[in-house]
Amino acid sequence: MTPATPDRIDTLRIDGMRLLDRLAAMARIGWKDNACCRLALTDEDREGRDQLVAWMKAAGLTVSIDPVGNIFGLRPGTDPSAAPVMTGSHIDTVRTGGKYDGNLGVLGGLEVAMTLNDAGVKTRRGLVVAAFSNEEGARFHPDILGSMVFAGGLTLEEAYGTVAIDGKRYGEELDRIGYRGDAPVPAFEPHAYVELHIEQGPILDIEGVTIGAVRNLQGISWQEVSIVGQSNHAGTTPMHLRRDAGYCAAAIGMELRAIAREMGGSQVCTMGAANLHPNLINVIAARALVTVDIRNTSEELLQKAEKRFADFLVRLASEEKVTITTKSLARFQPVKFDDGVADLIARHARALGLSCRDMTSGAGHDAQMLARMCPSAMIFVPSVKGISHNGAEHTEPEDLEAGANVLLQSLVELAA
Amino acid sequence: MTPATPDRIDTLRIDGMRLLDRLAAMARIGWKDNACCRLALTDEDREGRDQLVAWMKAAGLTVSIDPVGNIFGLRPGTDPSAAPVMTGSHIDTVRTGGKYDGNLGVLGGLEVAMTLNDAGVKTRRGLVVAAFSNEEGARFHPDILGSMVFAGGLTLEEAYGTVAIDGKRYGEELDRIGYRGDAPVPAFEPHAYVELHIEQGPILDIEGVTIGAVRNLQGISWQEVSIVGQSNHAGTTPMHLRRDAGYCAAAIGMELRAIAREMGGSQVCTMGAANLHPNLINVIAARALVTVDIRNTSEELLQKAEKRFADFLVRLASEEKVTITTKSLARFQPVKFDDGVADLIARHARALGLSCRDMTSGAGHDAQMLARMCPSAMIFVPSVKGISHNGAEHTEPEDLEAGANVLLQSLVELAA
Repeated sequence: MTPATPDRIDTLRIDGMRLLDRLAAMARIGWKDNACCRLALTDEDREGRDQLVAWMKAAGLTVSIDPVGNIFGLRPGTDPSAAPVMTGSHIDTVRTGGKYDGNLGVLGGLEVAMTLNDAGVKTRRGLVVAAFSNEEGARFHPDILGSMVFAGGLTLEEAYGTVAIDGKRYGEELDRIGYRGDAPVPAFEPHAYVELHIEQGPILDIEGVTIGAVRNLQGISWQEVSIVGQSNHAGTTPMHLRRDAGYCAAAIGMELRAIAREMGGSQVCTMGAANLHPNLINVIAARALVTVDIRNTSEELLQKAEKRFADFLVRLASEEKVTITTKSLARFQPVKFDDGVADLIARHARALGLSCRDMTSGAGHDAQMLARMCPSAMIFVPSVKGISHNGAEHTEPEDLEAGANVLLQSLVELAA
Repeated sequence: MTPATPDRIDTLRIDGMRLLDRLAAMARIGWKDNACCRLALTDEDREGRDQLVAWMKAAGLTVSIDPVGNIFGLRPGTDPSAAPVMTGSHIDTVRTGGKYDGNLGVLGGLEVAMTLNDAGVKTRRGLVVAAFSNEEGARFHPDILGSMVFAGGLTLEEAYGTVAIDGKRYGEELDRIGYRGDAPVPAFEPHAYVELHIEQGPILDIEGVTIGAVRNLQGISWQEVSIVGQSNHAGTTPMHLRRDAGYCAAAIGMELRAIAREMGGSQVCTMGAANLHPNLINVIAARALVTVDIRNTSEELLQKAEKRFADFLVRLASEEKVTITTKSLARFQPVKFDDGVADLIARHARALGLSCRDMTSGAGHDAQMLARMCPSAMIFVPSVKGISHNGAEHTEPEDLEAGANVLLQSLVELAA
């Protein structure tokens, strides 16, 4: 083995078939009813973790587990005193997940390490492949929990006390599956972090672009809005005497669309869930519970949208004589990734002959937590029709391979 | 006993305590969790029917049951060739019903017959107290079924084939509770029909008026609207690429309010139920199913509202690139009651020293079916806060008594 040199690294390529085989093998764990269900800290998650750890060890990586269950596979560098470069993502899924969300970042990182092994490439800095716990938040709230603890944004005690939708505690479930490790928190202070991920949106697919160099990530404001009005007969109650929680739910859905349309830019708003009570055709709804998802890449504009929405709720409550209360379910500030890392990603994409564009991430990712610790950015590959969190989630094999090659080149340069 | 004469009839009054006792006794049948659940053709309905028949027989009424389960108690008149006057309502309830909806009309009619008995009053025409089957439609669809069959609007075969929400057939359940009778359909050709009922709306209560002389009944159009869009990530999908079924549900709720506001008059519109799928905070809804309740006292205006709503759905489907289909769940034309009967009710209310106003019924009632057969009208008494279809449904005892006295005087005049 000789130390890595630029002239031979340029021609290095990952093994696409090997990557696809591992993605398929991981997707089979928890696959049922045409989707992947590997909720955090379930038996399926444990099986996925065991498989990953086995692969990491087979690839010669030094595996460590930290107390929140994050898994790290280290490929040492030639300079043990230099901070390692980190890549990774997560292997937990939503209830009806796809094959690539999270897995691509973890198994893409593993593939990079194996490719370097096969080519006998040494890097000055070590390379750490990470699989962070409970990124999806589909079982334990908040989401992005493992990397949040890693980055110091949540204490271990807070994480352990988190209660799942099925009533179980995070700490107990972590013990149950045997993944409460003893690595320090954080286990590493990374020199830089690059995460490969599917876009989970339609932009790259629609534009026919292969690589997104992700420069920022939308801030997210999640609220649950509870409306209490008065149940009454839908035929006998004059319009001016109604205190209709169902109408208020509708008005909220319309206002969210108006906020997004009028603010423009990256502003998106969604009313994804709505539950009326008693939910009968001829009864004015007494109560409604709706969810509100507001995102913007600018913290200032996100706050502006939140303010406008809050003011709207005050007016609506007054006009319809209902009581409206809100509960914040999640609030993440927008994240600005490192331009140096994003430039480097874009440069390597173009050097590989791939089309590339700058991107904003609309979804939350582990990278947003790592960005607090070190220069970070992400690589996106296309999601066909933008479908994600769905068994039909698909990325073309050549795009998966292209993304992993950009990851390879980027990590090697950062580790030099 | 001497035949009724105007001078002694004017001073005749029902026994308020006896009426209240019977209302309370009937409400106890099926009472649980602070509401009355006596769904049509259930064991609770049978128990209520058995009690009613026992009371009718004890009052000397001649009881007959028709093949759809309608119960009739006849107090014969002095002229057997003269068509009888009919009063009544229903004793079935919704799942969370109150004490008075329906019961007041049936037990008020029984109380009138008993009062006439006690006073030895003879009337030329007979008096029939009717309890019609399945008025609420909470178990078997359509609602107002028993009186619809009585009035020739639905065949017995159609009624028997109706399937309950629990999968049982009407005919089988009717046999099971022993209430498939053999009286002809219709059992009587009434001379006139008067139904006493709680308003189920807030108008009399708010205005402090005791008696409503009901001159018409709103037409009802019930639709189920199904929207099929595209499920996608709430963060990564730009607004202009969304096909959001949840937004469409909101837009429908707003349009219904706009139709009611802009058309004014008696026009009311309600989106009482809305169900989104997958109903998650960060997923654009793929599908939505909402119910639409549109009512107007004018058939022409009701059709205008339906047309405007249908046109709106076409525009909405095109703008949001979703598929929208509608299914009519019920459609009743507005009913004009008989002005002569309504005038008579109002005259007797005032003669009794009661405040009275003309009313429109926003809800459907058995009287709308009877109006096809004979001059018909209704007497409303106040519902406190307009609350109905709810265990908290309440009418003050003096208003219950006042309504029954107006019923008494009206029936006696019609039976003369």
